[in-house]
Amino acid sequence: MAKKIKKIGVLTSGGDAPGMNAAIRAVVRACAYYHTECVGFYRGFQGVIEGDFVALNARSVRNILPYGGTILQSARSREFMTKEGRAKAAAKIKEAEVDAVILIGGDGTFRGGLALSEEHGIPCIGVPGTIDNDISGTNFTIGYDTALNTVVDAIDKIRDTASSHNRLFFVEVMGRDAGFIALNSGIGAGAEEILIPEEDLGLERLLNSLERSRRSGKTSSIVVVSEGDKIGKNVFELAEYVKENLPYYDAKVTVLGHIQRGGKPTCFDRVLASRLCVKAVELLMDGNRDVMVGLMNNDIVYTSISKALKTEHTVNKDLLRISDILST
Amino acid sequence: MAKKIKKIGVLTSGGDAPGMNAAIRAVVRACAYYHTECVGFYRGFQGVIEGDFVALNARSVRNILPYGGTILQSARSREFMTKEGRAKAAAKIKEAEVDAVILIGGDGTFRGGLALSEEHGIPCIGVPGTIDNDISGTNFTIGYDTALNTVVDAIDKIRDTASSHNRLFFVEVMGRDAGFIALNSGIGAGAEEILIPEEDLGLERLLNSLERSRRSGKTSSIVVVSEGDKIGKNVFELAEYVKENLPYYDAKVTVLGHIQRGGKPTCFDRVLASRLCVKAVELLMDGNRDVMVGLMNNDIVYTSISKALKTEHTVNKDLLRISDILST
Amino acid sequence: MAKKIKKIGVLTSGGDAPGMNAAIRAVVRACAYYHTECVGFYRGFQGVIEGDFVALNARSVRNILPYGGTILQSARSREFMTKEGRAKAAAKIKEAEVDAVILIGGDGTFRGGLALSEEHGIPCIGVPGTIDNDISGTNFTIGYDTALNTVVDAIDKIRDTASSHNRLFFVEVMGRDAGFIALNSGIGAGAEEILIPEEDLGLERLLNSLERSRRSGKTSSIVVVSEGDKIGKNVFELAEYVKENLPYYDAKVTVLGHIQRGGKPTCFDRVLASRLCVKAVELLMDGNRDVMVGLMNNDIVYTSISKALKTEHTVNKDLLRISDILST
Amino acid sequence: MAKKIKKIGVLTSGGDAPGMNAAIRAVVRACAYYHTECVGFYRGFQGVIEGDFVALNARSVRNILPYGGTILQSARSREFMTKEGRAKAAAKIKEAEVDAVILIGGDGTFRGGLALSEEHGIPCIGVPGTIDNDISGTNFTIGYDTALNTVVDAIDKIRDTASSHNRLFFVEVMGRDAGFIALNSGIGAGAEEILIPEEDLGLERLLNSLERSRRSGKTSSIVVVSEGDKIGKNVFELAEYVKENLPYYDAKVTVLGHIQRGGKPTCFDRVLASRLCVKAVELLMDGNRDVMVGLMNNDIVYTSISKALKTEHTVNKDLLRISDILST
Repeated sequence: MAKKIKKIGVLTSGGDAPGMNAAIRAVVRACAYYHTECVGFYRGFQGVIEGDFVALNARSVRNILPYGGTILQSARSREFMTKEGRAKAAAKIKEAEVDAVILIGGDGTFRGGLALSEEHGIPCIGVPGTIDNDISGTNFTIGYDTALNTVVDAIDKIRDTASSHNRLFFVEVMGRDAGFIALNSGIGAGAEEILIPEEDLGLERLLNSLERSRRSGKTSSIVVVSEGDKIGKNVFELAEYVKENLPYYDAKVTVLGHIQRGGKPTCFDRVLASRLCVKAVELLMDGNRDVMVGLMNNDIVYTSISKALKTEHTVNKDLLRISDILST
Repeated sequence: MAKKIKKIGVLTSGGDAPGMNAAIRAVVRACAYYHTECVGFYRGFQGVIEGDFVALNARSVRNILPYGGTILQSARSREFMTKEGRAKAAAKIKEAEVDAVILIGGDGTFRGGLALSEEHGIPCIGVPGTIDNDISGTNFTIGYDTALNTVVDAIDKIRDTASSHNRLFFVEVMGRDAGFIALNSGIGAGAEEILIPEEDLGLERLLNSLERSRRSGKTSSIVVVSEGDKIGKNVFELAEYVKENLPYYDAKVTVLGHIQRGGKPTCFDRVLASRLCVKAVELLMDGNRDVMVGLMNNDIVYTSISKALKTEHTVNKDLLRISDILST
Repeated sequence: MAKKIKKIGVLTSGGDAPGMNAAIRAVVRACAYYHTECVGFYRGFQGVIEGDFVALNARSVRNILPYGGTILQSARSREFMTKEGRAKAAAKIKEAEVDAVILIGGDGTFRGGLALSEEHGIPCIGVPGTIDNDISGTNFTIGYDTALNTVVDAIDKIRDTASSHNRLFFVEVMGRDAGFIALNSGIGAGAEEILIPEEDLGLERLLNSLERSRRSGKTSSIVVVSEGDKIGKNVFELAEYVKENLPYYDAKVTVLGHIQRGGKPTCFDRVLASRLCVKAVELLMDGNRDVMVGLMNNDIVYTSISKALKTEHTVNKDLLRISDILST
Repeated sequence: MAKKIKKIGVLTSGGDAPGMNAAIRAVVRACAYYHTECVGFYRGFQGVIEGDFVALNARSVRNILPYGGTILQSARSREFMTKEGRAKAAAKIKEAEVDAVILIGGDGTFRGGLALSEEHGIPCIGVPGTIDNDISGTNFTIGYDTALNTVVDAIDKIRDTASSHNRLFFVEVMGRDAGFIALNSGIGAGAEEILIPEEDLGLERLLNSLERSRRSGKTSSIVVVSEGDKIGKNVFELAEYVKENLPYYDAKVTVLGHIQRGGKPTCFDRVLASRLCVKAVELLMDGNRDVMVGLMNNDIVYTSISKALKTEHTVNKDLLRISDILST
């Protein structure tokens, strides 16, 4: 029978995402509600290894709900990648009398948690928190909706100046190896073209499309390019290539960069984080372990982490077709 | 066999919602893509009755994607409620050689479309567009996500001043007879209490909760009240009642009102509107009629309008429990 | 010769305003820079009376710059209005070895500071912090610019729905007895009419203007009404009056309320707060007292508080003429 | 005696700036108010040369007030740089019976207008519209306040992720050869260091400051770099240089780029544009020419364009000192 959980640790790891504070708050408040102790580890697994943690009660997380970033900070720990590092981490967790850990992050974070569980018997629950939305077992990850709105807001601004000057803009967005952000922000911002790693449509097609666009009377165009795009050129080379081939275009590049990771979380991300993390605590109280929580069809569900890690969350390629229709 | 669709009419009706312009754009662009003519009727069914419409092509909807409101305007037509009004409308539709109508609005709008179809054989497709999210057959309606963010943004601001002055605020939000906006914005903004029409928890409970909140060290509190709340008091009476019973509270009221209907649509609402309306056009091209499109589990689906009208979209009452846990 | 200042107290008082945290931060950082101790009193003069204060160093104000509200909280203290209350306050200030006080607030706050100085010899410096902009000796008060943007953003949203439904909206904004917010947000949002306390143009004129507006082809209108407007009717009565006299108008009312006090301060308010408060500390170090700092012609200046209190900051009535021209 | 002005042309030229639409609207509405005809030239002087213009009346500018960009578009015309180009432009202006031109743009635009006036006797009025604020004769240019808020909002987001990961960020902002944007957004966002072209403080100082910052307990830092900075390295080289010399810093670069040119104008920019442009029309009606309008000490003033062009608008270097104090 599962050991009774009396103290839960929580950490944020990997790239930070808006809504991580909402998630921490929900873990802490749910622990308080269920009369369970809670501690927060700083800087992800690195803080675990260093025994750098803090006791958290309902008042500790007052007022953090609307803020971007993570009060527990995040990091990528190289030491934790080693067996020795994980042994150190496990020792610190036991020393702190922490019975289980809730991990807020992406697949790297979940892999780390699983290793802790398998090698040292420490139960963990994964909460998908990343702007990239590249986690299986959930329709949406925490931070993704906020990042989409940040990107769309930025492209709306770029559209203003593109229209005023008849310009072509290449806008690079984040997303690692997945095109979720590019595809959805591209449709949301009415981009004329969207380039994602999942689908290499070729440079030829891009030139044709831009030329058709221009002939149809469009005087400015926006091309959204995912950072992981596999077209064989980076966004600056791409712009150069288009300039050479379509010389009437005054092509400019904007790399949106780290603004996509920050900012106040949207209502969607706050509610998502709140629901997922209450569930994460309740799953632990009920004796579950090594699962990740997710949102499917607007319901909170959970899957085994190992299964989630084996499955890929694939973009809906039909959205490329929608984008083509809408940029008619 | 269904008549081939050569011209589609589109209208927005009922309360306007952010994303209606994105929806109109998607209808028009999809028509252009499928070489189908498109006209827009002004002011919902009223414009139909008056034969007040405009031909729309791909360029007509340039640049409207990011804007709130609806370029076709909206209205509630009393004349259309009568059999004579609908006969007039049908005559105008036929005169304009419009083969089918896409209706962007709420249940009242869909009822109107169904009547047109049943009484006059005019095929229609419903697209759920309302900030209230009170439509069955879809997880989300167009405009709802934007309204949630507007509300959360407003409550974040109110929280600033509530915290500075140790105040209790009652914030009334929209939603007609449904608590979707109140419940989700309440969790999103970290409200201490949420009052929705679906659940009358009683005044006693509210007083107890506020008192408990205060004893636990909270010096300011936000109560989100749905406009349709059935607690037997309006928001101003509620505030008075609390002031009388808990005199240490300096209670204030804010009625958010029509700011909830406007503003730039979020990425979510833009993508939702785009996907739903491309599908609406394609359904007509494929011979479907009298159905509404919706988003379920992140996929575009459709149901018969009559079935959707008979079913209620119910709020997830478990969210009340989540809210209680989080305001610990 | 003036006593050397070794410890400075700071407080925020009266209605809170965005940028007060930026102001507190600047006081604290400037004190640290000049190796002067700094304490913050909670809840304005009430905290002084109660001896409720905290030592503040450069790290205490980390990260507060972008946030609305005031970490020191604010209040209106009735006890401080009495001679006894002020004597208590003075005793607490001396007990805390605080040599001078920086007061962030409006004219009521400054009057309080002046009384402390005159009755008990405690030097003070006033920093104008109020959304109302009704302080003489400065072109702008801290919080005013942010409030203007909050109001304009809200009216932009209302405009979306007003245009969609051909409606007339009355929007009540804050400003106490001064029309600064109404006048400038009204021009900024393109309001058709602006009603301010400083100029009673009469109901007749309002009706005429609305009718002219309608005849010129405008189908929606926004009337911005200052809360202190002296037209003899509150905003709801005003809407009723117009409905009775111009029955074709579907008039609605929105009272913006306390959202105007919160939110992230604009760049302007942050820079203004920063510059004013560094100067406030430097003035104390240089032996000045009982003056208020202000921004005139983009330069930081200072005036005696007693003079500032005797002078009225009047709105530029020429803006009413500009508004008339622009709503042609 | 000056010829009576019966028709006014308006154009936007150079880099576009938020508020240009508010400016165009104010020119058009003021013309309507004074019963003067108005035409808008497209794409700045290029449209003048091509005779590409449109008649504008009060209704033409309905609803453009809140939008970024410019409905008249903008461009830099190489042809207009030549005497022949200007002769063509003058001929087109006379052909269109336009009596005077209002130029919304920066110093290049004003120089163009002055040439038209001197060589061809066409009166012009300059309206300062540029995000760079680098125009003499006015405290503020149209678009500058909006750009500052866009930058501060972006840096707030970057701060979230910088704090979560203990990172150092170099953020490049616009401003051409002037440090207005860098200096004010840097203070507004609480940047640890600000590098502007007007003051080369040296790389040594930067390293020292960052090291001091770190020793004082700061775990993340933001350095705002003006695009025109003269430190001898571009922002990427700068980051490399710091990484080499302070290896404990994980330095990242963000180039904000063209998002700074777009977006909804702030209330400040809308009111500024409105006041300046009503004045511009009135100056023409009163027989003035070849002057530019400006805002000094919150009043609308005007200076001769030639004088304004000879004077430099210098940044207030005292702000560097303020920034140092605040990043203590």
